[in-house]
Amino acid sequence: MGILNGMRVVEGSAFVAVPLAGMTLAQMGAEVIRFDRIGGGLDAGRLPLAPSGRSLFWAGLNKGKKSIAVDMKSPEGRELITRIVTAPGEDAGLFLTNLRVRGWMDYETLSQHREDMIMVTLTGDRHGRPQVDYTVNPALGIPDITGPEGYADPVANALPAWDLISGNLVVASLLAAERHRLRYGTGQNVDLSLKDVAAATLGHLGMIGDAVVNDAPRQKSGNALYGAYGQDFLCADGTRVMVIGLTDRQWRGLVKATGSEDAMSVLERQSGKSLGDEANRWALRDQISALLRPWFAARSLADFADDFDRQGLTWSVFRTVKEAVAQDADLSAQNPMFEILDQPGLGRFPVPACPAEFSEALRDAPVRAPSLGEHTEEILSEVAGMDFSEIARLFDKGIVATGDAALGQAA
Amino acid sequence: MGILNGMRVVEGSAFVAVPLAGMTLAQMGAEVIRFDRIGGGLDAGRLPLAPSGRSLFWAGLNKGKKSIAVDMKSPEGRELITRIVTAPGEDAGLFLTNLRVRGWMDYETLSQHREDMIMVTLTGDRHGRPQVDYTVNPALGIPDITGPEGYADPVANALPAWDLISGNLVVASLLAAERHRLRYGTGQNVDLSLKDVAAATLGHLGMIGDAVVNDAPRQKSGNALYGAYGQDFLCADGTRVMVIGLTDRQWRGLVKATGSEDAMSVLERQSGKSLGDEANRWALRDQISALLRPWFAARSLADFADDFDRQGLTWSVFRTVKEAVAQDADLSAQNPMFEILDQPGLGRFPVPACPAEFSEALRDAPVRAPSLGEHTEEILSEVAGMDFSEIARLFDKGIVATGDAALGQAA
Repeated sequence: MGILNGMRVVEGSAFVAVPLAGMTLAQMGAEVIRFDRIGGGLDAGRLPLAPSGRSLFWAGLNKGKKSIAVDMKSPEGRELITRIVTAPGEDAGLFLTNLRVRGWMDYETLSQHREDMIMVTLTGDRHGRPQVDYTVNPALGIPDITGPEGYADPVANALPAWDLISGNLVVASLLAAERHRLRYGTGQNVDLSLKDVAAATLGHLGMIGDAVVNDAPRQKSGNALYGAYGQDFLCADGTRVMVIGLTDRQWRGLVKATGSEDAMSVLERQSGKSLGDEANRWALRDQISALLRPWFAARSLADFADDFDRQGLTWSVFRTVKEAVAQDADLSAQNPMFEILDQPGLGRFPVPACPAEFSEALRDAPVRAPSLGEHTEEILSEVAGMDFSEIARLFDKGIVATGDAALGQAA
Repeated sequence: MGILNGMRVVEGSAFVAVPLAGMTLAQMGAEVIRFDRIGGGLDAGRLPLAPSGRSLFWAGLNKGKKSIAVDMKSPEGRELITRIVTAPGEDAGLFLTNLRVRGWMDYETLSQHREDMIMVTLTGDRHGRPQVDYTVNPALGIPDITGPEGYADPVANALPAWDLISGNLVVASLLAAERHRLRYGTGQNVDLSLKDVAAATLGHLGMIGDAVVNDAPRQKSGNALYGAYGQDFLCADGTRVMVIGLTDRQWRGLVKATGSEDAMSVLERQSGKSLGDEANRWALRDQISALLRPWFAARSLADFADDFDRQGLTWSVFRTVKEAVAQDADLSAQNPMFEILDQPGLGRFPVPACPAEFSEALRDAPVRAPSLGEHTEEILSEVAGMDFSEIARLFDKGIVATGDAALGQAA
């Protein structure tokens, strides 16, 4: 039983942030119901796809949820969603969304059906304008400081970092609001935007202050660790490694492991700067790297890997995702977080559970994502409290669907 | 009063993830006590720095916390931390850390002093080996898919995304564990690792499945939006913009706004592929961009910006961080999330509050970070319950410090 066992959350969502939030809650043991329009939501076919054409992305971000497919253009479909979102239950009445629907699906309307409901809405920006990770990131300047030193153009992240950060903050916000309800009995509306999360994060990292009070802004610095020492090196066998000298201990360990004590002393004398100071390591990073480069260039990974580990260095090897999945035990079933699942239409591969382990709760094994509308009947019966004839009527009228019909395909 | 008003959390931490977690809780209204060794923790001088030499980074990630400086090498100092972490209070006994200290500071030992305490520990990897964002990222392959198409080398993120994601998951984990305690009265130990968070995220995004079931792995694709359509373009005035055609609606809007209907129809006929399908937009992205590029190259930003906004397009302008801070109202005091604070030794700039707005709680205005040991006396008195003579003795013996002494400097 997961740590949130008993909680029920309803999710009306698409793409990364809110689906991730719902999935995190599901992997912590909550019952999470995602509703979609018949035919699938905006992210139903998002890449990457399996050879079958099914979305690996959707399967990844909707694991362990229950799915209901509803015709939301019909008043009856909307009424149904309202009923499910506001269904009774001490640990229910929790709604997550990034679909900004005014009227029937906004907090004012829904809370008329359940006064103590909690709704968390993630929008693009605080004005309600559409923004995605790929537009927020350039607007805030991250691509300008990403990439090889001296490279003229901005370089975007391959990772939708703002979505992922926001998704976890949606989880925290829901739990904070639910904690408040447990104590005071009141529900509430919670709003946040992707751009505000990103803007706040820039502030948290000191980057807004840096931009205002310092003349020389941060520039691209390739693969260097910003602000102290950390650099990538090519080894004799073509392997690329990342080594870190962020803390004094890490720095001294790196110097010792590479036998660079004398060379670094000379650099300190020549520069008049102590490398015990992280800002000096940052300022002298090119000189430091020039001293270390021949050491790595003369060695293959196997020549130093065990020694680096034994000495407790902070370092890693650059890989492709394919190599990481094939080679790293932490991305395999050897890591108790992963289980190999054989998912219909997708294939057999390691699927992660929740990264957090709670000593008072079992870590739920990862559960595959539902097919669209897989739990339509169950939800109508158990959550909406409908009887067989009502449910049959909704299916007959095409207000709800399951199986091929939910996918918008002829049976 | 913030949504978590009344909660007390103790934090023993350094760098990004756990300080961010504590700060998020503080900005939601919790009392968060960060303890550090006298002279400051590992991140006390982390870049960026203000011209005074003070860390903008530390100030950003410790906003609104209380600070106590303790000599943790002394048994008495350790006893003091134990007393603070396990101090009574219904909403206390909550401890966050990324300092892996065996013995006096582990869950087994601390929970002997307060049975229902909750401790959340973030480690580097699940084996307890040191890992930082800069090593986890290359190990999992993200730099291999980041950067300009065809560029040979891996490109690292400028943003410590895994730290930021993990920090928010630490918040969610603490709140989930505290919810469990509210219901069942039991505390617990919660463990997670930076590398597991990253590995799970790869799985959630479908990238592990992609690496296993597909032959052609994802490659670098420059600034393109992965998997659908989204691209950056240079305008006549040198401005670079990002435009998005992720959803059908966004795509149709972009085609209409640029008057490209006919050109796209020709491309559809020539390729035999419908651009209504996002996978086709991804496959044909270079051809699409070739058709759109002259449109942007012939126009300055001012020629189309208002029109794009009016039509509800999803788009943005590339900026430097400095430009974003200077030009974007969302990063200024015009955004109620920000307040201009004048921070001693740092300067005057916009400081963010919590991005989430709770209708049942005030959004606490951002509060500057404490100076090291600023609250030492208050915490000893109010949390550890010590009287004046006990506190004076601890200061005299150098077990605790405040002011210049906390910074490890002569007064």
